[in-house]
Amino acid sequence: MSKLKGFMAPKTPTGKSAIVPDMPWFYSGTLLTVEYLTDPAYVRAILPPELELADEQPGAVAFIWADWQSCSTDKAELLDPIRSQYLEAFVVVRCKYEGVTYSRCVAIWVTKDFAIARGWFQGYPKKLGSAHVTRVFNHGVATPKVAAGGKFGATLSAYDHRLANAIVTLKEPVDSNGFVNGHKMLHSRWVPSITPGAGNSLDQLITMGGVDADLGQAWGGDAELELFDSQWDELASILPVEKILGGYFREVGVTFNGGTLVADNSNPSI
Amino acid sequence: MSKLKGFMAPKTPTGKSAIVPDMPWFYSGTLLTVEYLTDPAYVRAILPPELELADEQPGAVAFIWADWQSCSTDKAELLDPIRSQYLEAFVVVRCKYEGVTYSRCVAIWVTKDFAIARGWFQGYPKKLGSAHVTRVFNHGVATPKVAAGGKFGATLSAYDHRLANAIVTLKEPVDSNGFVNGHKMLHSRWVPSITPGAGNSLDQLITMGGVDADLGQAWGGDAELELFDSQWDELASILPVEKILGGYFREVGVTFNGGTLVADNSNPSI
Amino acid sequence: MSKLKGFMAPKTPTGKSAIVPDMPWFYSGTLLTVEYLTDPAYVRAILPPELELADEQPGAVAFIWADWQSCSTDKAELLDPIRSQYLEAFVVVRCKYEGVTYSRCVAIWVTKDFAIARGWFQGYPKKLGSAHVTRVFNHGVATPKVAAGGKFGATLSAYDHRLANAIVTLKEPVDSNGFVNGHKMLHSRWVPSITPGAGNSLDQLITMGGVDADLGQAWGGDAELELFDSQWDELASILPVEKILGGYFREVGVTFNGGTLVADNSNPSI
Amino acid sequence: MSKLKGFMAPKTPTGKSAIVPDMPWFYSGTLLTVEYLTDPAYVRAILPPELELADEQPGAVAFIWADWQSCSTDKAELLDPIRSQYLEAFVVVRCKYEGVTYSRCVAIWVTKDFAIARGWFQGYPKKLGSAHVTRVFNHGVATPKVAAGGKFGATLSAYDHRLANAIVTLKEPVDSNGFVNGHKMLHSRWVPSITPGAGNSLDQLITMGGVDADLGQAWGGDAELELFDSQWDELASILPVEKILGGYFREVGVTFNGGTLVADNSNPSI
Repeated sequence: MSKLKGFMAPKTPTGKSAIVPDMPWFYSGTLLTVEYLTDPAYVRAILPPELELADEQPGAVAFIWADWQSCSTDKAELLDPIRSQYLEAFVVVRCKYEGVTYSRCVAIWVTKDFAIARGWFQGYPKKLGSAHVTRVFNHGVATPKVAAGGKFGATLSAYDHRLANAIVTLKEPVDSNGFVNGHKMLHSRWVPSITPGAGNSLDQLITMGGVDADLGQAWGGDAELELFDSQWDELASILPVEKILGGYFREVGVTFNGGTLVADNSNPSI
Repeated sequence: MSKLKGFMAPKTPTGKSAIVPDMPWFYSGTLLTVEYLTDPAYVRAILPPELELADEQPGAVAFIWADWQSCSTDKAELLDPIRSQYLEAFVVVRCKYEGVTYSRCVAIWVTKDFAIARGWFQGYPKKLGSAHVTRVFNHGVATPKVAAGGKFGATLSAYDHRLANAIVTLKEPVDSNGFVNGHKMLHSRWVPSITPGAGNSLDQLITMGGVDADLGQAWGGDAELELFDSQWDELASILPVEKILGGYFREVGVTFNGGTLVADNSNPSI
Repeated sequence: MSKLKGFMAPKTPTGKSAIVPDMPWFYSGTLLTVEYLTDPAYVRAILPPELELADEQPGAVAFIWADWQSCSTDKAELLDPIRSQYLEAFVVVRCKYEGVTYSRCVAIWVTKDFAIARGWFQGYPKKLGSAHVTRVFNHGVATPKVAAGGKFGATLSAYDHRLANAIVTLKEPVDSNGFVNGHKMLHSRWVPSITPGAGNSLDQLITMGGVDADLGQAWGGDAELELFDSQWDELASILPVEKILGGYFREVGVTFNGGTLVADNSNPSI
Repeated sequence: MSKLKGFMAPKTPTGKSAIVPDMPWFYSGTLLTVEYLTDPAYVRAILPPELELADEQPGAVAFIWADWQSCSTDKAELLDPIRSQYLEAFVVVRCKYEGVTYSRCVAIWVTKDFAIARGWFQGYPKKLGSAHVTRVFNHGVATPKVAAGGKFGATLSAYDHRLANAIVTLKEPVDSNGFVNGHKMLHSRWVPSITPGAGNSLDQLITMGGVDADLGQAWGGDAELELFDSQWDELASILPVEKILGGYFREVGVTFNGGTLVADNSNPSI
């Protein structure tokens, strides 16, 4: 009897229909980041109880727009580029667990379903959104340059509500594109029981991160960031901006090839 | 320490950001169905090994377009209707498990992320797609009537590839809108381990179905159905049409309020 | 030599590619309307100089959401419904020209390109937008009823900025769904010269309206309306709400089959 | 009395709502081109009678995907990038008029309404479509390089029907990215009378082209191109591929600032 194939749903005899193919997954893109401080109490409130605040700058937040092209091993996605290109806008804080400092994504919107699927597997709390970020072209004047004065805009909306606007104006090359998203991620993966109120069938803490990073020169500069809430999405209220730390632009390549289980509270018998 | 809330991701202190709020979920809509026969070997091949073919008409398939408006208990979604309205196109076969006949969805595309989230929780193998179905209006001539000769079109595409076209021409009132999707659903819910190749952390067989059905008069008639494959989605190759059984239209209301665990093969320690 | 065919662009030997086929065009749908008063000075400011304010209630404005299914004579669009269904949200004021009172659309967003094309031909100042309005279903609880207490929401956004929110709560059957959009339309059609600064090659005032109206019972009730501006679209600033007059819901069918030239200021030699 | 402002609709007191602001318009982007030969009879058939075939290679066709970021003089669009970025896929042939050889766009799909508006002003027969083209990133492996062997995919769909697929594999730097789209454009601009069957109120032949071209190095190579028809769009049937000539990639910047009237057949009195 033929075994069904497919890393994620749907499984078929060939496995071709899977919303996400087998790892590894490869990414080329750009990151536009705004880092800011909020009151650490807000970060504390968005972390599950078992996690602690980071020791230094516990109120630091990174809001990142990633403009990705991605593919799996055979790179077939690159030739049907609607299946390869997407944007994501996400919010990262830091936390501490058993003495180790981690980064943790607490909100994220992406533009394609395959990216949602990858994210749920990885513990990213992904939803669909409409994200845009200014691109860099090498010719003409309808583009910023990666140079002092280069100005980038970025926006996010979901369900037709504008949720975030950012502007980053580059000043100079810097060592890194921020410090908040610089650790291994510590993420929760859970699936509620199909029985109402019974708890979670799956409930894991996992850690993961990219490998084979191929990094361009980071640029830093000034940033503006406006956050909004809608009826369906919270940003301004959960991690309000107290003080902008800076803005960054960087071209990056990275590979994702899985992670490690950290703790398990699953109850698969429900 | 505040406890995070949210039925599904992301969790926040208020729970408002959850991609899906708590059950129950309420649905009002229309179903356009084409039922057909394929070779039972194709149905066998798309079922996991532990399931058996149904005893009668094991090669029967239902291709269903649902045009939904849905909401949760406070009905807030109805007043921001982008958050409430969506379409889905899905393929249902039947199967047998421990002597009981079930319906099972083997492929499904929806137009909104909250519908993906609900589906993954329920074991529907949901992806995003672009689904359309002719609507019924009560005035003017740019509409079919729910009457003999009423003609409905329905289409599905994903990643800019057309995957299905259907036409249903109504003939007469009938007792039900098909028999394939008439049992409790038997669905698989699984989440691969974050460790590559380690198997599934969650792996359940669950059953579920709607409650409080509020059904309109079913109409039956003739149907045409074209299925296609793309590089990313299989329809024509996995469940090819051998013989059309009929087409149906029905207005329906239904509530979803969870299901029951049937079998568990999870390994949350990976 | 074959003559090219096509009511609007692109023309081809068959005419099949035209973004809009030949008239007549048929529409079935629903209208959700909020009527309100603004200061007549705002209406005056949004009218071209050659038009006058209406004699009575010159500050009256109608904000209308239309949820359409439309087709041309062979009704082929109905069977590929993505080509048939669209929404539009539009703002209508009244004006007077040579002693006759007209309705005039001063802002409109639609969800499909064929609707933009029809609109530009008709003098509607159409742009793309994302419009949503609560639908009525006959079964289940995720729907308002066309009855006292029935509550409808409607929203508009463009370029990811929310531009309008409305809620209409039905009270009782009424004679008509408002008075602002009840006259023949008086619209401007113009095309700037391809030479910068040279003026308009086409510059006409035309009148038009639907024919063969097939109207359902109008319902009236209370309404709320919020308007916003974005960087690209003006609503709150051009026709601010002073006083809500009422809200309406009506199912309608209508046919469009052209109009009449009223005045011409074209200069096609530029 | 305040004069209304707005290059194109809608006009308002400020002019801010215009779907397109005043020229000049600035573009930065990339062009992926496939040139091929069709039977010149097909080119003849898609030209209006008053135009002649080009003298040399009259059956040559260019299918071009452009991935644009564009803005007007104040560059505000660049900071709300959803208003700035779009793709277009278009088909260009050549023709001769009064002894001069021109390029002429006979089919074009774009992803934003402002691009439709600019196009109709310019005589491009624009419709909405979904266009995608592989992008070049400087880091990681999920990207082609602008180098021998670099492989680019491009696709087009409209109304959920796939219309074109292309693959270009770069070989070497070349002098230009094709010859078909290398002349001034000769375009038709027309608006039918609002009176059915009365002819065209506006009917002009105009010429236009970009200025201030800032061109990157052109790369040439091998190409594949598949064309399809849908019920609403003709490609395979109007300009079928007989022989592929080559494929090209080039980064470009350009400015558009109007054109010149060539011939007028308008009848604004209808």
